[in-house]
Amino acid sequence: MQELITHISQRGNTLCLGLDLDPERIPAAFQGHENPLAALACAIVDATHDVVAAYKPNTAFFEQEGSRGWAGLEALCRHIDNRAFLIVDAKRGDIGNTSARYARALFQGLGAHAITLAPYMGRDSVEPFLPKTRERNGAGLAPGMGAYVLALTSNAGAQDFQMLDIGGKPLYWRVLESLDAWNKDWADHRLGAVVGATRPTDLEAIRRAFPALPLLIPGVGAQGGDLESVRRALDLGHGPALVNVSRDILYGPDAVAEPEAVRARALAYAARMECA
Amino acid sequence: MQELITHISQRGNTLCLGLDLDPERIPAAFQGHENPLAALACAIVDATHDVVAAYKPNTAFFEQEGSRGWAGLEALCRHIDNRAFLIVDAKRGDIGNTSARYARALFQGLGAHAITLAPYMGRDSVEPFLPKTRERNGAGLAPGMGAYVLALTSNAGAQDFQMLDIGGKPLYWRVLESLDAWNKDWADHRLGAVVGATRPTDLEAIRRAFPALPLLIPGVGAQGGDLESVRRALDLGHGPALVNVSRDILYGPDAVAEPEAVRARALAYAARMECA
Repeated sequence: MQELITHISQRGNTLCLGLDLDPERIPAAFQGHENPLAALACAIVDATHDVVAAYKPNTAFFEQEGSRGWAGLEALCRHIDNRAFLIVDAKRGDIGNTSARYARALFQGLGAHAITLAPYMGRDSVEPFLPKTRERNGAGLAPGMGAYVLALTSNAGAQDFQMLDIGGKPLYWRVLESLDAWNKDWADHRLGAVVGATRPTDLEAIRRAFPALPLLIPGVGAQGGDLESVRRALDLGHGPALVNVSRDILYGPDAVAEPEAVRARALAYAARMECA
Repeated sequence: MQELITHISQRGNTLCLGLDLDPERIPAAFQGHENPLAALACAIVDATHDVVAAYKPNTAFFEQEGSRGWAGLEALCRHIDNRAFLIVDAKRGDIGNTSARYARALFQGLGAHAITLAPYMGRDSVEPFLPKTRERNGAGLAPGMGAYVLALTSNAGAQDFQMLDIGGKPLYWRVLESLDAWNKDWADHRLGAVVGATRPTDLEAIRRAFPALPLLIPGVGAQGGDLESVRRALDLGHGPALVNVSRDILYGPDAVAEPEAVRARALAYAARMECA
């Protein structure tokens, strides 16, 4: 994830902006555009690319507009054009033959540097997304790409399965152990974990036990995670970590995502999380 | 899932055809088409809709062709036009706000009768897909729709997490118990489970313990599942069950998916699985 480290050190912060824009709340200036959602997202990128280290569009927000929405996601990813690290938040995962298709869609089709994956189907559902199998599946993907696998998520439902006890450890811990093992075994340290900011004590324990594991941390802001406790936890390890904020930066009290106002809110967040 | 039961009883079988077509193996007659993959899939639907009870396109096979692929998936779903039960195999699942977007994409946008979901993020990642929350999320979805949640999948990686022991039972059993509870609690029996045909003894135990739970059973054919043992297991319960076959019907020994040959192979499968 050299690309990521470069973007983090250039900005001096680990801020990832989640581009989860509500199509029902598009500022008037963008409503006349052929594809208002994509046009707004592109304008927000233009206004913030020197501030944030990474962008994270979520496929759901584009798929809800069908093929037009997917075309908008393609336009957005092209528009980012390596000005920041690009994580496509897709939470995919399927049998190997099918995961290889998703890898093509997300890495080749959209140009993602990294993606998110769901772990439930196990190793052979994750493997087609990563370097060593790229030659094998013929997808022709570049070697710098990675994947963040869901471990401990920021929502209430995390407790339904992720926290079930397996021989004295929660399920999410087994996922983290597997990621760590796969990183050493075949994934060349390109697998990271999604760990929510809403459980700071668990985040601390995770960072301490897996200090090198790349982390993607959602849940700060609207979902209730606290930035200061995330910072303290991250200081316990050294793997590249990104803190994602979506609604709290996109939408101010007026509930409108005007690009310049988004920039101001992103700057305020960036100031609070400058690298030590 | 009344719609499903109607299609099953009209055909006299529980065959679901997985429309996982390889874009690199399109018959010559379809290669000149603007969207060869979708054109071939539509022709296969025309040749088989009186034979199979359900179709299951997987989003990965369309996403790999980007927005053009998604437009092809839209065209295919429109073309099926309620002539069979339509399952969009998407394996989605995200925080509630985002799952509601996926529900809109799959149910409203594509017209799916049912979809597949991944369980890892828990109850609040599943709930926005189902009836009682439809009014709440404003997606305006019809009340007949359902979701199949991954429980015990057909791939080798199923053993990595799904089979981990939790207080004497495997994780997938806890997922099944949750689905059963959610069905009674809020999902109106519209949640089913994905259980692979590749583990027939487990399938028998599942059918015996959850006889009313709707099942979607992949893994017959190319993945190694045996149709006869699936039939025996299904006889132990009464919930609507669909047996999915993809590659073994789509591709004969010549590795080409000619619609009339696909029809012949579908008929042969249907004959082997007629309802008693």
